[in-house]
Amino acid sequence: MPETRSSASEKAGLPAGELVHVGEVHHAESSITLLDYDKDDLHVHHISSVRDLLPYKSSNTVSWVIIEGLADMALFRELGEVFDIHPLVLEDIVNTHQRPKMDEYEDYLYMVLKRLEVSDTEFAVEYEQLSLLLFDNMLFTFKEKRDDLFVTVMTRLRAEKGRLRTQSTDYLAYVVLDTIVDGYFALQDSLDAFTDDIEENLFERPGPELLNRIQQAKRELIFVRKSLSPLREMLAALERSDSTLLSEKTHIYLRDVYDHAIRVIESVDSYRDLITGMLEIYLSSVSNRLNEIMKVLTVFSTIFIPLTFITGIYGMNFQDMPELKWPWSYPILWLVFISIPAILLIYFRKRKWL
Amino acid sequence: MPETRSSASEKAGLPAGELVHVGEVHHAESSITLLDYDKDDLHVHHISSVRDLLPYKSSNTVSWVIIEGLADMALFRELGEVFDIHPLVLEDIVNTHQRPKMDEYEDYLYMVLKRLEVSDTEFAVEYEQLSLLLFDNMLFTFKEKRDDLFVTVMTRLRAEKGRLRTQSTDYLAYVVLDTIVDGYFALQDSLDAFTDDIEENLFERPGPELLNRIQQAKRELIFVRKSLSPLREMLAALERSDSTLLSEKTHIYLRDVYDHAIRVIESVDSYRDLITGMLEIYLSSVSNRLNEIMKVLTVFSTIFIPLTFITGIYGMNFQDMPELKWPWSYPILWLVFISIPAILLIYFRKRKWL
Amino acid sequence: MPETRSSASEKAGLPAGELVHVGEVHHAESSITLLDYDKDDLHVHHISSVRDLLPYKSSNTVSWVIIEGLADMALFRELGEVFDIHPLVLEDIVNTHQRPKMDEYEDYLYMVLKRLEVSDTEFAVEYEQLSLLLFDNMLFTFKEKRDDLFVTVMTRLRAEKGRLRTQSTDYLAYVVLDTIVDGYFALQDSLDAFTDDIEENLFERPGPELLNRIQQAKRELIFVRKSLSPLREMLAALERSDSTLLSEKTHIYLRDVYDHAIRVIESVDSYRDLITGMLEIYLSSVSNRLNEIMKVLTVFSTIFIPLTFITGIYGMNFQDMPELKWPWSYPILWLVFISIPAILLIYFRKRKWL
Amino acid sequence: MPETRSSASEKAGLPAGELVHVGEVHHAESSITLLDYDKDDLHVHHISSVRDLLPYKSSNTVSWVIIEGLADMALFRELGEVFDIHPLVLEDIVNTHQRPKMDEYEDYLYMVLKRLEVSDTEFAVEYEQLSLLLFDNMLFTFKEKRDDLFVTVMTRLRAEKGRLRTQSTDYLAYVVLDTIVDGYFALQDSLDAFTDDIEENLFERPGPELLNRIQQAKRELIFVRKSLSPLREMLAALERSDSTLLSEKTHIYLRDVYDHAIRVIESVDSYRDLITGMLEIYLSSVSNRLNEIMKVLTVFSTIFIPLTFITGIYGMNFQDMPELKWPWSYPILWLVFISIPAILLIYFRKRKWL
Amino acid sequence: MPETRSSASEKAGLPAGELVHVGEVHHAESSITLLDYDKDDLHVHHISSVRDLLPYKSSNTVSWVIIEGLADMALFRELGEVFDIHPLVLEDIVNTHQRPKMDEYEDYLYMVLKRLEVSDTEFAVEYEQLSLLLFDNMLFTFKEKRDDLFVTVMTRLRAEKGRLRTQSTDYLAYVVLDTIVDGYFALQDSLDAFTDDIEENLFERPGPELLNRIQQAKRELIFVRKSLSPLREMLAALERSDSTLLSEKTHIYLRDVYDHAIRVIESVDSYRDLITGMLEIYLSSVSNRLNEIMKVLTVFSTIFIPLTFITGIYGMNFQDMPELKWPWSYPILWLVFISIPAILLIYFRKRKWL
Repeated sequence: MPETRSSASEKAGLPAGELVHVGEVHHAESSITLLDYDKDDLHVHHISSVRDLLPYKSSNTVSWVIIEGLADMALFRELGEVFDIHPLVLEDIVNTHQRPKMDEYEDYLYMVLKRLEVSDTEFAVEYEQLSLLLFDNMLFTFKEKRDDLFVTVMTRLRAEKGRLRTQSTDYLAYVVLDTIVDGYFALQDSLDAFTDDIEENLFERPGPELLNRIQQAKRELIFVRKSLSPLREMLAALERSDSTLLSEKTHIYLRDVYDHAIRVIESVDSYRDLITGMLEIYLSSVSNRLNEIMKVLTVFSTIFIPLTFITGIYGMNFQDMPELKWPWSYPILWLVFISIPAILLIYFRKRKWL
Repeated sequence: MPETRSSASEKAGLPAGELVHVGEVHHAESSITLLDYDKDDLHVHHISSVRDLLPYKSSNTVSWVIIEGLADMALFRELGEVFDIHPLVLEDIVNTHQRPKMDEYEDYLYMVLKRLEVSDTEFAVEYEQLSLLLFDNMLFTFKEKRDDLFVTVMTRLRAEKGRLRTQSTDYLAYVVLDTIVDGYFALQDSLDAFTDDIEENLFERPGPELLNRIQQAKRELIFVRKSLSPLREMLAALERSDSTLLSEKTHIYLRDVYDHAIRVIESVDSYRDLITGMLEIYLSSVSNRLNEIMKVLTVFSTIFIPLTFITGIYGMNFQDMPELKWPWSYPILWLVFISIPAILLIYFRKRKWL
Repeated sequence: MPETRSSASEKAGLPAGELVHVGEVHHAESSITLLDYDKDDLHVHHISSVRDLLPYKSSNTVSWVIIEGLADMALFRELGEVFDIHPLVLEDIVNTHQRPKMDEYEDYLYMVLKRLEVSDTEFAVEYEQLSLLLFDNMLFTFKEKRDDLFVTVMTRLRAEKGRLRTQSTDYLAYVVLDTIVDGYFALQDSLDAFTDDIEENLFERPGPELLNRIQQAKRELIFVRKSLSPLREMLAALERSDSTLLSEKTHIYLRDVYDHAIRVIESVDSYRDLITGMLEIYLSSVSNRLNEIMKVLTVFSTIFIPLTFITGIYGMNFQDMPELKWPWSYPILWLVFISIPAILLIYFRKRKWL
Repeated sequence: MPETRSSASEKAGLPAGELVHVGEVHHAESSITLLDYDKDDLHVHHISSVRDLLPYKSSNTVSWVIIEGLADMALFRELGEVFDIHPLVLEDIVNTHQRPKMDEYEDYLYMVLKRLEVSDTEFAVEYEQLSLLLFDNMLFTFKEKRDDLFVTVMTRLRAEKGRLRTQSTDYLAYVVLDTIVDGYFALQDSLDAFTDDIEENLFERPGPELLNRIQQAKRELIFVRKSLSPLREMLAALERSDSTLLSEKTHIYLRDVYDHAIRVIESVDSYRDLITGMLEIYLSSVSNRLNEIMKVLTVFSTIFIPLTFITGIYGMNFQDMPELKWPWSYPILWLVFISIPAILLIYFRKRKWL
Repeated sequence: MPETRSSASEKAGLPAGELVHVGEVHHAESSITLLDYDKDDLHVHHISSVRDLLPYKSSNTVSWVIIEGLADMALFRELGEVFDIHPLVLEDIVNTHQRPKMDEYEDYLYMVLKRLEVSDTEFAVEYEQLSLLLFDNMLFTFKEKRDDLFVTVMTRLRAEKGRLRTQSTDYLAYVVLDTIVDGYFALQDSLDAFTDDIEENLFERPGPELLNRIQQAKRELIFVRKSLSPLREMLAALERSDSTLLSEKTHIYLRDVYDHAIRVIESVDSYRDLITGMLEIYLSSVSNRLNEIMKVLTVFSTIFIPLTFITGIYGMNFQDMPELKWPWSYPILWLVFISIPAILLIYFRKRKWL
């Protein structure tokens, strides 16, 4: 189900900066995980109060704060005060109807985008909003749910020799973006399988069930597209940004993420074209079948209707029907019964109906 | 009903600056409400003459003038003189067929946009034109009707501790714009429910009634889109504007309104795609049903037409029909009557018609 | 009939500057009217020779020359010489297949656009080409036909206190443009009524006649759009122009004309979308009706065909048909005649065909 | 037949600068015509060797070289050497699959575009590629075929008083471009007649033949559009060019050619929309006819099928059918035979089938 | 099969710079061929170790390294180290799902594009990814498969007098790009033949088999377009690039490649339009045939159904049917049997059904 299905207007009428969580509540409480590392050490902390994060603000290590669950307003209010975050940014973080975008503020970059996941059996996409706040040596990531999205990143961080440990915060932000965008390729593969499956059935089994799946795919693609296409603009802005928070070296990596995003967006567009084309083929296919059916009906009807009429004639009970008494009438009629269909069949074959 | 339905050409041929109200008349008289406030005080006045507003022009407080009803031309003429407003701006305010836009003049900014409201039961959109005139410490808002659009804003103003009271006039203008744009999210939710409802019936109950609703949705969306899409350009211009009437701080908030507007516009586009797709599905669905109907007709006809022909043969009254006297003719014929349908049914099953 | 219907290639092969009138000839002779005015006086002259216009070239008054009828080549040749007009401009004035555009020359601005008129009963658009030549204190307007387009402007000029009399030539040009563009709103209203009318009949009376009207509307809209959409570019160029012929003050008014043109163009696009959507609805509506018809046929056929077969059986003349002699055969058969339709009707109702 | 129908890949794999003629061979030998003129004199020469052209390179007269036939590779190789033409330019001249474009080189401008011709009876477009090489006082034009395209230009050159004789080489280039673009208007007129013709038959005689013509028009328009739309870009580049080969005065004339090209391109787009719309109307029209046919079938069938069933009943040979003996049975049955159709006809009329 | 059909998500979750081959494995081992040449000499070496390439890095000759097979990760890792290639570039080379692009690095240009090949009998496109790394005097080309793509280029290199031998590395890169882009013209020719074939059958033999081919063409074109359209951007960037690796002279040649690419892309778009139009024609054609079939059925049914009813009447066994005894009844009935069809046939002819 597309994310816009939950009430987009929940927050309407409230003042800007009034924090209200808009979207599904996955967890009543938010969990805060802190990964603090440099080349030599890595510490993982489970933080209970925002105040505990304050010392890391001015440390020399890279601090990655993962906040899961967006329903705990007190936490976000405190976060805003402690790290001096603009109320509108906080509002955007907790409202899960955001359009992917990147906003530059004096001390930090704010990025928001969607994670997309498809269930294996059916082509139903699930959306999770992810926000990033990139400070000088601190990265906040905000997630709606607790899941294993960052497991591989953490594993790489834990590996002592991993290159990731030696890099700065902006590289970590790149890795997070890359992880999310890489997830879209799974969506692409799923789409691929789904459309292949539809196509196979297109000529074999056109019917309401297939139509339903085409409609489902069309709808999902419309909303997937809506979630992905702003990425083009957002990642281009990020790549072009001259913020001091992003090093020259990281820009090359961001360009790579941008390339990946473009590839996925273009694929989604291709699949849309494909699905739209399939619907037209479907309609043509159904029309073909109707023609086939009508041909059978017409052939049968046009052959037997005249014959039945003839039998009707000689079934009449008039007293004066000389033919009834002729000895050859009946055999001759059989000749007629055979020759009329023969002539019609030749005619139909000539018209390519058979 | 789209706003263009009332006569767009009413004013044609009149000189520019000749004030004529174009649109529905909701109230013969315009009502003027003034909210004058600073951090410490808030006064609400109901003003009867435009001249009474003059002292507030040069005061240090923020003055918000709400004018409801656009049919009183004398009032607007006086307003033009007292506050030195360009005749074309006055003309645009009272002509309710405006396209959303923002025009910068030396002393003020003129903004015009549409408020959209959907009735709950049916997807019928109502339009109200809202104009804003932003002076240095005065904000005029012009509405067609008296309603409760600004109730929440006023409540926030009345709250002594509200942040709003400490802000300047441009922030108030932002709050007004934000209120209008937030209203669009309600439209989006309504659209969501409406399309869901259509989709549910698409496979279950395709018929003229559903077609009618699809047509209604298509038409409304065309006109909603026409009213909303110029907002993109208008709000971008506002955000980019280097007018001294807009403070640096307010620009961040205007960017937020811009983001919201983009979200709504993209949603409307998505729903258009969705509805268009549904119409194609509808057509395919109807074709499927026709095929089903024709299959039933064809199966019945092709089975019974040959059989009826056979009964016709032995219903004929020829004197020399030897079969009629054979004792096993009738039972054998019953075998034929059973085997022909059996063969045909196998054939139809093979063709997947059954 | 769209303007391109007359032979676009008439002039092909002739040298540039070779004046040839291309288009319908409405009047063999061109009539020249001169309105010469300043704040205090207004004189209207009917001029017979172009030479008579020469003194007004360097006067301090505003001189408005209205030339109606474009078939008198001698006149245009003389005009070119007297006022030093580029041959290509003269060529464009007398060739009525121009696309709206604005060209800046050293001494004058050349503008060309279309006037659109719809007849009341049918939606058939008539086109008239209007050219403007704006000199420093002289404005030429060229029309194909003699009609009352400028009557209201002239009335306003005659009114002694009218603001128009106190304005310069560029403001007069604005008034002329505004008059033409305002005329498009009448077209918009007519379109509105026409599409409303089609929509009403869409579900009630789909048929060839309605189809014909949809086709007519589609065709007219294609050509209306072709005539109007270049206005966007032309008026934007005019507004942006830094020509000294246009005063700062007039630019504000030109922006207003631009806004009006955009509104009309967007409306035309909306109506195109509307009409296109209606055609799809029409097709679906026709398919629905076919389904209804086929259901009736199928219900009737499937009920009576098996029954007729049964009557056929007992109409056969075999000697050994024991049922014929059983006393309860006939009443039992009536039970069959009643129960088969009953079963089928229940089946059809279950399938929602009835 | 579109020009791309001949093998676009003929030249694939050969080195750049390797001259190979790609396209239809119209003439084995190329003919070279030279028109050398100034205000006072005009000489026409038929040249046999490229070397003979060399003296004209540095003369003060305008030299127009017309080369017809593109299959003589030796000639082009020599031309390249004598006039120092870039190998890629030579390659483009002899490969007739070029997209219209303009390339600036140090000493010359290279332009290539298509001449379009329609045969009168059928809407089949023929393409001829024309290349122009504009040197300081020499203009080369390369044509595929020998025809009368330049007859009118030559006539104008021969007229001693013609303005053309007094102009420079770039003006001659303009005249050549103008001649080609003017030829497109004939195409436009032909399109106009063709679509009018289709439209007239749309409601009268929809059938396979009409469908075939629509398809033909669609296909031709796709390829015409492909040949014309790059002109927009090419002529805009030419107009904007600051090459010293083009005088200020000629730029005004090039803008005129640009305007003409835009007009034709927009017309072609309009006709595409028109044809596409007609196909939809066609489909709707065919559906309408199907409905009409089915109504007739259904009315006949539903009236007579029940009646035939009734006759079947009383045609059965049961011994105990009391009705057979009643004297009023037969007349009563006639009442039934009349009243059933009457009821059904009233029902059908109510449903608006008749 | 489109290239995206293999799993696009294979590499998801791995760190950037972690080399993993994504795509079909054509060869387990990569083969390295080195062509080292200058004006005088050409040496071809088959290299086994990347280290052996090192001396050529700083030589004065042009060195062309062709690496075929992308599955040998060790090789690419070594290449990265020896030639100091950015890890992301190496990653892109071995992942065959790239979108055509050009990236500028300090020491080299990285280009990636697709080679397209169509099998002769069926319109099934095969994709091969080609990467180019252009160093100062070294060009690496990376191919998925071993084939004869570069045979003609090598032949030209071997020719002692060939111009190619005297040119620098960037010209060689141009030749490689030109070879790939020229290959697209074969695709265009194949498309041309394929669509011609479909069109011929469109009116003759519309049926499921043709529909299948249309669908196949549509699908292939979507993916071909996806592979080619980024070329426009890539080659424009290359042409505009101010990299010192590209000489002024080569830019002219790159513009030529750009022109070729545009031609192919526009052709693909034209064929898409053509195929889409054909599907509409197909649907109309099928509807036409349905109409034909239904007309035959309707004519037969409406003629014989009333006649059969009449025979049914006089087949009834009522005792009191006076007509049965009249001597002229039977001949009169024959008149009826002849006149009813005659009347109906006239009616049908009038309605243009016959």
